[in-house]
Amino acid sequence: MKAKVYLKVDRQNQYHPWIYKQEIGKIVGDYENGDLVGVFTPSGRFRGIGYINDRSKITVRLLSFEPIDVDRLIKMRIENAIHRRKRLLKDQEALRLIYAESDWLPGLIVDKYGDYLVLQINTLGMEKLKEKVVSTLVSLLPNVVGIYEKSDAPAREKEGLAQSTGWLYGSGPEIIYFRSDGLVLAADLLGQKTGAFLDQIRNARVLSHFAEGSVCLDAFSYTGNFALHLLKYGAKHVKLVDYSERALQIADDLLKKNGFEGKYELINENAFDWLKRNSAYGEQYDIVVLDPPSFAKTARSKDQAIRGHKEINLRAIRLIKKPGLLVTSSCTQVISEMEFEQILLDAANDSHAELAVIYKSGQSFDHPYLLGVEETRYLKFFVCEARRRS
Amino acid sequence: MKAKVYLKVDRQNQYHPWIYKQEIGKIVGDYENGDLVGVFTPSGRFRGIGYINDRSKITVRLLSFEPIDVDRLIKMRIENAIHRRKRLLKDQEALRLIYAESDWLPGLIVDKYGDYLVLQINTLGMEKLKEKVVSTLVSLLPNVVGIYEKSDAPAREKEGLAQSTGWLYGSGPEIIYFRSDGLVLAADLLGQKTGAFLDQIRNARVLSHFAEGSVCLDAFSYTGNFALHLLKYGAKHVKLVDYSERALQIADDLLKKNGFEGKYELINENAFDWLKRNSAYGEQYDIVVLDPPSFAKTARSKDQAIRGHKEINLRAIRLIKKPGLLVTSSCTQVISEMEFEQILLDAANDSHAELAVIYKSGQSFDHPYLLGVEETRYLKFFVCEARRRS
Repeated sequence: MKAKVYLKVDRQNQYHPWIYKQEIGKIVGDYENGDLVGVFTPSGRFRGIGYINDRSKITVRLLSFEPIDVDRLIKMRIENAIHRRKRLLKDQEALRLIYAESDWLPGLIVDKYGDYLVLQINTLGMEKLKEKVVSTLVSLLPNVVGIYEKSDAPAREKEGLAQSTGWLYGSGPEIIYFRSDGLVLAADLLGQKTGAFLDQIRNARVLSHFAEGSVCLDAFSYTGNFALHLLKYGAKHVKLVDYSERALQIADDLLKKNGFEGKYELINENAFDWLKRNSAYGEQYDIVVLDPPSFAKTARSKDQAIRGHKEINLRAIRLIKKPGLLVTSSCTQVISEMEFEQILLDAANDSHAELAVIYKSGQSFDHPYLLGVEETRYLKFFVCEARRRS
Repeated sequence: MKAKVYLKVDRQNQYHPWIYKQEIGKIVGDYENGDLVGVFTPSGRFRGIGYINDRSKITVRLLSFEPIDVDRLIKMRIENAIHRRKRLLKDQEALRLIYAESDWLPGLIVDKYGDYLVLQINTLGMEKLKEKVVSTLVSLLPNVVGIYEKSDAPAREKEGLAQSTGWLYGSGPEIIYFRSDGLVLAADLLGQKTGAFLDQIRNARVLSHFAEGSVCLDAFSYTGNFALHLLKYGAKHVKLVDYSERALQIADDLLKKNGFEGKYELINENAFDWLKRNSAYGEQYDIVVLDPPSFAKTARSKDQAIRGHKEINLRAIRLIKKPGLLVTSSCTQVISEMEFEQILLDAANDSHAELAVIYKSGQSFDHPYLLGVEETRYLKFFVCEARRRS
């Protein structure tokens, strides 16, 4: 018999998957952390099932608002996530198959790179469901030859989980190559996230309208997603700056594989420092791309993230030949889109420039965000014209 | 000698082009409404030049922060606007060449449809500059064979201007056909805006990933922009609903020209009423597109706009086979993007459905909005997965 979690106050018309510790009135019955529990209103009305971890402020994460057997539920959730992406699967070798809360599988991320899957688990409750998840994926996707676990996110610590990486099913290479929009790209199983930034691949495609003949800077390049797209769309030259030597080595390999030899330069330095040192040289690039790390993971470090973003955008604007393009992103969940716009405006004013937004977007189709669940939204992507004020 | 407008308080680090009546301390010198004036701080420091109309709450609209001869300025502004769109001009027959405040030409809109330009003037100050604008456009764009004025926006009334339509240069047909992404589309000089909704053409292209095999509803279809794109990308059938018989006749013509006979149905009815009557029939469409009129032009009628948007989105969600797509827009400036998201969330909750945002965007590249000038932003475009809650 599952333990029963009683809410202090009923949630009316509220479908958020998270139940915080302070929302809970009492828990009846025994449980271990990670177990499934039923959630009820104070008067005992059923509200959903989820998994519990009393070590976390987010004590219950809901899996369903209906009573349902967990084996059936996991299978249904994974089937639905794949079904909704069915049309994308036809023309994209690489995409996110399962995006955690947005697919009502909290704590689980599964990315597909060609015939390989890379899986990330961030909660104890999902950890306990891992075997079911893997066997379901194997049965639903017969072409998959390897499933790699890359559970190395810091979030696991809060759940009392150690890092866990390795092949769970089949096997494969450390660097997985895949095709995307006519380019060869790569996921590095020793790299960031699940190996590549699938959330930005589609955003890079919008540069097809602007790249021709341009001299570009790709700051925080990682393995070169933006640089590769810029060159494919006709850029004359791209400078890539990244602190990771390994990421730049992979970028080098990919740039060569795609036939861009002689059209790029690799700079192995923290892009933040590089921008600081180089912005004094003035207008040098037609397009500057910024795809920085989050600078902050918690609300407490929000000020630091705001300062970091402002600093790099200000430096970038100075480096752009006007009119030119600032292609700028923020992946931190703690800064909203409106706050990010204010940061860009402040950076523009401080540089005596004007920014006109010609395109803005967020996560790709395969990373949908749920309306009403703010935590499923994180990426801000802006293409701005940087102009001289006159 | 131009009249001098002295501000009550200096504007520090504020680059908005509008100066409201209540911001003005005194005006020294004579002027007629529509004349150019200099703008100064209370202590007499130059802040910019603009044109004045004391009949309007927006009494001065700035053209420049630098002192510059107006003939040179108009030429420079138009040249810059075209230069910034140079790359787009290569692969798009139709695009907005000049977008008012965003190009620092307040009150002026110029759209290009093939070899024709359609121009709209919304202020008295720009009306007085019309001849300069037309001669500059003719000299910069030698391929243009006709310039049509379609100054029929209600905003002109506030400026004391009557409607004004007709050919200003050369001549051309009443319906201008143009190619866009492999489709034949049309601008109707007797229709809405400048004849077509250029701001939504690029947004319609995102449906290429989702349309295949779908049964669709295009509500508020006008001349069929979304319907045409859906069919091009493989939709099985599209129902178009619009109150304008003329718009549907043009849609019919375009649908036939593009080879989609037998794949569509035209319904000549107010889409608002049609949705109300039909939503009771339940889940019938894979994709529902809503591209309604603004419902409200002023802050005072904002509540009405919110109610209107909620109503049609709620009806649309009920009509979608889940999981299916709600492709929904709002072009009213008085509803912000965040407010629109709240409307969508309320509509989803009231329909016992869940909405996951898979794409969101706004105006196309050629309608940029200026950071810090909220009034240049109006279009919200969302592609949402509508799902059953479970």
